[in-house]
Amino acid sequence: MIQLDFKKAGGLIPAIAQDNATGEILMLAYMNQEAFEATLATGTATYYSRSRQTLWIKGETSGNVQRIKEIRIDCDEDAVLLKVEQIGGAACHTGHRSCFHKKIENNSIRIVGKPMFDPKEVYHK
Amino acid sequence: MIQLDFKKAGGLIPAIAQDNATGEILMLAYMNQEAFEATLATGTATYYSRSRQTLWIKGETSGNVQRIKEIRIDCDEDAVLLKVEQIGGAACHTGHRSCFHKKIENNSIRIVGKPMFDPKEVYHK
Repeated sequence: MIQLDFKKAGGLIPAIAQDNATGEILMLAYMNQEAFEATLATGTATYYSRSRQTLWIKGETSGNVQRIKEIRIDCDEDAVLLKVEQIGGAACHTGHRSCFHKKIENNSIRIVGKPMFDPKEVYHK
Repeated sequence: MIQLDFKKAGGLIPAIAQDNATGEILMLAYMNQEAFEATLATGTATYYSRSRQTLWIKGETSGNVQRIKEIRIDCDEDAVLLKVEQIGGAACHTGHRSCFHKKIENNSIRIVGKPMFDPKEVYHK
């Protein structure tokens, strides 16, 4: 099994999800070794939720799972890049396609694009 | 000034550098508030080096600086995406264009692509 370097960042490493077809960055989340191995084994992006402190299969609530097309790790093996097919089209819990929808312009934040779904309907909160 | 959320990750947040023209992910590094503000002020990617514990202007040694084309932050404002022009073509200290040149295949690592420069010549080590 491939051992990543979890020491430098205190047990978790960042994982970038990138749309395999368009190259768009969808989100950044975190993995521990168990999440990395689950992602490899299942072909579905599995992260570690820092807030819930548990494994997190992305899309288990919304249905918007991420099918793994390719996995890369970086030179010092402490960051992961997942090239994915984003089921449902949107990765962000806000309904936006990408979590990186806040653009910095003139020292302020401008929201780019519109949500693809209403979070209230998807998450029933 | 835009205040990012540095609390969750212990004072540093991940910053992804993406080639503005091709969409390729070049590297992932870390920022503190000072690095973020220096990046905004100078238009050149400035990170925080965890190993050297100091601000790090990417390319200050190699000349391979990253000119900022666009800055995005994510929904909860604890990750940064820099869309950059990578001067010199290669972002990785190994000479590879991208730090993410290690591809996972059949539970092992395969190096993708060839270095664009010889690190020994660039870094004089």
